[in-house]
Amino acid sequence: MIMTTEQLILQIHKKRSFLCIGLDVDLDKIPKHLLEEVDPIFEFNKAIIDATHHLCVAYKPNLAFYEAYGLKGWKALEKTIKYINNNHPEIFTIADAKRGDIGNTSTRYAKAFFEDLAFDSITVAPYMGKDSVEPFLAFENKHTILLALTSNPGAFDFQTDSEDDNALYKKVLKTSKTWDNAHNLMYVIGATKAEYLAEVRKIVPNNFLLVPGVGAQGGNLEDVCKFGMNDHIGLLINSSRGIIYASNDLDFAKAATLKAEELQIQMETILKGN
Amino acid sequence: MIMTTEQLILQIHKKRSFLCIGLDVDLDKIPKHLLEEVDPIFEFNKAIIDATHHLCVAYKPNLAFYEAYGLKGWKALEKTIKYINNNHPEIFTIADAKRGDIGNTSTRYAKAFFEDLAFDSITVAPYMGKDSVEPFLAFENKHTILLALTSNPGAFDFQTDSEDDNALYKKVLKTSKTWDNAHNLMYVIGATKAEYLAEVRKIVPNNFLLVPGVGAQGGNLEDVCKFGMNDHIGLLINSSRGIIYASNDLDFAKAATLKAEELQIQMETILKGN
Repeated sequence: MIMTTEQLILQIHKKRSFLCIGLDVDLDKIPKHLLEEVDPIFEFNKAIIDATHHLCVAYKPNLAFYEAYGLKGWKALEKTIKYINNNHPEIFTIADAKRGDIGNTSTRYAKAFFEDLAFDSITVAPYMGKDSVEPFLAFENKHTILLALTSNPGAFDFQTDSEDDNALYKKVLKTSKTWDNAHNLMYVIGATKAEYLAEVRKIVPNNFLLVPGVGAQGGNLEDVCKFGMNDHIGLLINSSRGIIYASNDLDFAKAATLKAEELQIQMETILKGN
Repeated sequence: MIMTTEQLILQIHKKRSFLCIGLDVDLDKIPKHLLEEVDPIFEFNKAIIDATHHLCVAYKPNLAFYEAYGLKGWKALEKTIKYINNNHPEIFTIADAKRGDIGNTSTRYAKAFFEDLAFDSITVAPYMGKDSVEPFLAFENKHTILLALTSNPGAFDFQTDSEDDNALYKKVLKTSKTWDNAHNLMYVIGATKAEYLAEVRKIVPNNFLLVPGVGAQGGNLEDVCKFGMNDHIGLLINSSRGIIYASNDLDFAKAATLKAEELQIQMETILKGN
């Protein structure tokens, strides 16, 4: 299904949720009984998807977790994205790849993730500038989610290198707005810095923000919505470990449903008040 | 073989070369007759490696080209790195992956590339800061090649955002020097900006620099050496297309030898004068 921004907004209202679930599969953390399956990574994802698809609008596999398992990991990733696209075409899919390379090489990555794997979007690092990002933006109805302000401690090393308008994350927001097909841009803005979201919204009032860091990393959902929500919602809140590893026993899928439901109910309350 | 920096320097003197060859395989560009092989990507790489290993000290597959072919690409990458490690253990291998993610996720990438695929080094993007890079640095006798000043036009968007000491690439060099196990750092510095190399050497006099952009992208080898070479050489000069696509006919391996030899001879001359 063609995932336009309008379609994503429609799904948010329909499901009363702007939850994104991170599918970061770690074989050391999944329930032991799954390890007997032929493809434990896919079986885990399938169970999580079956248990949560009605509560979220997006899934985000982080590629590192799949590449860590080599061919086996890539196979599981391919099966996972196909499973989502075939069974839940209304779900927005994010390849959390943080790619970025010189022009012709970025085109390779864009084709791999947008066409071959059929993801709706990919996360991209801005360090190499315009010609490393525009090849992704060239794909119509595909979304490029640019790292701006990340949720890890190292975000303060370079991204917030200045207190004023010269901070790198602000330059990334401002400069990227001028690139070709900038309407296909979304941004990663960490929840652990909710106070920064007001600054971000001054520069990019309309773009969707993918917000990691709620829950495990300490970010607060209400603050994020207070400073980051716009009149078409404009937020995707990611939770990974808090949901997918809510239990590592036979009841893991049920536990994931309950944790996702908790967040969905909070989101529904916020949406009603908006 | 354990590729310490000392071992790399030894190989440079032995081969009278500091050439790195980029294995960026594009099925549209390789000789047509190879497409009939079961694994054309690997067969192409094998022929290039057989034809050039005595002239270079490093091989650098850019991961985008392999990921673009999905499972087939990953299989070819695995075979390629195994082929190099088994037949030419003295060669320094670089996974040109430009990865970088939050701490525990970077650890995943580090394990995948350093342990499972047994690369000697990986290129890493600095945008997410210290905790996204240190997981790579933690691997002893493995090398983390941090993007500092890249060779593409977009390098000027953020990396050289200031004329003075506040330029982002300088901050990346200075800050990364303070990180744990910084002795495992090398840096990507594009050849298209040879005049910047003097500035780079003021900050990191001792680290190896991986220099793309000589040849196809317009960088000049002599200028790069003039400004970038240190007393243990400290340079790896990358060439990809100029060597591996020197011909796309039956004679492609021979043509690659000749092009690599041209560069090696220039390097030998420079080494003698040094």
